[in-house]
Amino acid sequence: MSLERGFPRAEYEARLNIIQQAMEVQDLDVILLTSEHDIRYITGFMTQFWQSPTRPWFVVVPARGMPEAVIPTIGVPLMERGFIGRVHSWPSPAAPDDGISLLADVIRSMAGTTPRLGMLMGRETKLMMPLRDLILLEEAIGSPERVDATEIFRACRMVKSDAEIAKIRHTCGMASKVFEQLPSWASAGMPLAEVFRGFKIKALESGLDDVSYLVGAAGQGGYGDIISPPGHAPLRSGDVLMLDTGCCWDGYFCDFDRNFAVGKVSAEAADAHALLWQATEDALTRIRVGMTSAELFAIMADRLGTDGDGVGRFGHGLGLQLTEPPSHIRWDETVLTENMVLTLEPSLEISEGRMLVHEENIVLRNDGAELLTTRAPAILPQLKA
Amino acid sequence: MSLERGFPRAEYEARLNIIQQAMEVQDLDVILLTSEHDIRYITGFMTQFWQSPTRPWFVVVPARGMPEAVIPTIGVPLMERGFIGRVHSWPSPAAPDDGISLLADVIRSMAGTTPRLGMLMGRETKLMMPLRDLILLEEAIGSPERVDATEIFRACRMVKSDAEIAKIRHTCGMASKVFEQLPSWASAGMPLAEVFRGFKIKALESGLDDVSYLVGAAGQGGYGDIISPPGHAPLRSGDVLMLDTGCCWDGYFCDFDRNFAVGKVSAEAADAHALLWQATEDALTRIRVGMTSAELFAIMADRLGTDGDGVGRFGHGLGLQLTEPPSHIRWDETVLTENMVLTLEPSLEISEGRMLVHEENIVLRNDGAELLTTRAPAILPQLKA
Repeated sequence: MSLERGFPRAEYEARLNIIQQAMEVQDLDVILLTSEHDIRYITGFMTQFWQSPTRPWFVVVPARGMPEAVIPTIGVPLMERGFIGRVHSWPSPAAPDDGISLLADVIRSMAGTTPRLGMLMGRETKLMMPLRDLILLEEAIGSPERVDATEIFRACRMVKSDAEIAKIRHTCGMASKVFEQLPSWASAGMPLAEVFRGFKIKALESGLDDVSYLVGAAGQGGYGDIISPPGHAPLRSGDVLMLDTGCCWDGYFCDFDRNFAVGKVSAEAADAHALLWQATEDALTRIRVGMTSAELFAIMADRLGTDGDGVGRFGHGLGLQLTEPPSHIRWDETVLTENMVLTLEPSLEISEGRMLVHEENIVLRNDGAELLTTRAPAILPQLKA
Repeated sequence: MSLERGFPRAEYEARLNIIQQAMEVQDLDVILLTSEHDIRYITGFMTQFWQSPTRPWFVVVPARGMPEAVIPTIGVPLMERGFIGRVHSWPSPAAPDDGISLLADVIRSMAGTTPRLGMLMGRETKLMMPLRDLILLEEAIGSPERVDATEIFRACRMVKSDAEIAKIRHTCGMASKVFEQLPSWASAGMPLAEVFRGFKIKALESGLDDVSYLVGAAGQGGYGDIISPPGHAPLRSGDVLMLDTGCCWDGYFCDFDRNFAVGKVSAEAADAHALLWQATEDALTRIRVGMTSAELFAIMADRLGTDGDGVGRFGHGLGLQLTEPPSHIRWDETVLTENMVLTLEPSLEISEGRMLVHEENIVLRNDGAELLTTRAPAILPQLKA
């Protein structure tokens, strides 16, 4: 807990510098940000207030100089403590004009008329403002040239700073301990929903800020659906229990899972876990800077004896969000570089509707993988039957 | 905990029926849904997997007949247990076409070419798919006429069923108890961040599923910024502590706050709390079906002696989301009807940067307000100094 929260100003200066260099290459006048994580990445503005969909939040990144915020009045004190130039505000919610004419004024003042307006509009992005208001905004600016700036933010955010890596390592470390202690309080007979509840409480007690994401499943010799809320049936001997969590500390996620044998599980399930563990081990040993996500995928797919058709991805980036680019999948040719934080997440279908998933978090260093999670045991840890 | 999770099928049939009647009035062929809460409202599809931004999810509501889903393969088992017609899927993430041509096919098969395509694009909506993909989709469908369908979903979702109200009451009841017990474990000297942590743990222990939202503040005789993460300075005698929480049970939120005096607070702060309590009491006593949100706002503004200029809203709807329409604010002419679930949330600025906020949750019945929260005491409850 000795790790400091927040970032020094230099962290944000470095981010902005990279973004603005890329903007120059694409000859962009401004980039308009509307989403929680992109805005936090640039300014440090962190609040749970995003849970309320009522008010829109805007940050405009110019080609040169400081970003400016166009935000509801309620957010001004917090935004002003962040890395930001001018903060423009209006008493949102307002009708009929909920900040749009103000935003148009700010964009025009920064970029003139008919600017080249960067928008995050590609893979994995969302438009976190009403579509109707975007149309009104573009009318008010006067026919800006809309340019897809997704790749600029994607490329920058994929590579983590030392300070970001320290936060993710801290998150992974605390969550690893919660998993390690699970056999001391969970056993056969406990409903899956109570295992979830217990996990969340232990995670908070351990120092994590939030358990923003917890999914899991339990089934005889494997599980099927892994995204449903937990059921209330008790764990049974022979079940494989899996929990997959995205806990947060100071705004940074871990994302990994652990499998447990409830009593004695089938040899098939134990073997599947051992094979997944080995596929992860292969990736840990062989991942290198310069390799692509597709090649990393192939390392794991080879071990699992699949050509990769019909399986999902075997991991992804993480950081401010539970999942971030790239995707370890056959088609993702993203080149892996130093200081990317990644999950390794191979999965295996044992039979129709019965699968196992295994996951670790790493940072890629110049000489290979550095684990951020405490490595799962090769042999399934056992819960009391 | 005897309340059942989920809804009977009739709940979803009733929702769909209301939506489709409104679609007929607007002569809509289909409505495309992309957001977690609208999709859950129609289908019952509930998962934390929305935390991952990687994969888009689509549900298409036709003018007649069952909604159809166009979703990543990983979600098929869960979606098929919901209220849904055909479930179309593809192995997302895919490149370059991440479900868009499939979605276009489904929309065309349901609505023909050049359909009137309803989109949720107005106040409080977001586009939860890449903007680039929306453009591709519209090209693939062949110039659909895009129609704003925000009001259709807004009107339907604002009025809650008995089953929804029961869930929100259950959530509010559990959270009320957590607040009531806070003086038994929190006191001066405890850092605000530890108060947050304690609250989350107690909430989970009490049976709540998640503490999805927790903000708050503490300051001498009042607080300023109320959306920041908690600091690590210890509570001091004379502080007013406020916690505002959105806990969830079975996918339904509460949203209310409680104030506490740390030791003895200024007479000014105690008076402000009493005045806010009285403003809430006025609203509780006088709210009636047929009144507008603006009139409800005026009841509270009158008590506080403000004309409503420069203050924010004094509450809003809630349910599947922490905040939902309407807004109790000067300009919101939404007519309040039976079975709307609402917050009453007056706030008062004592001096520059020092304010108090008070909040209760109610359901509007034909004869007036029914409290869902356990009413806050008129006198500030005290924590040990």
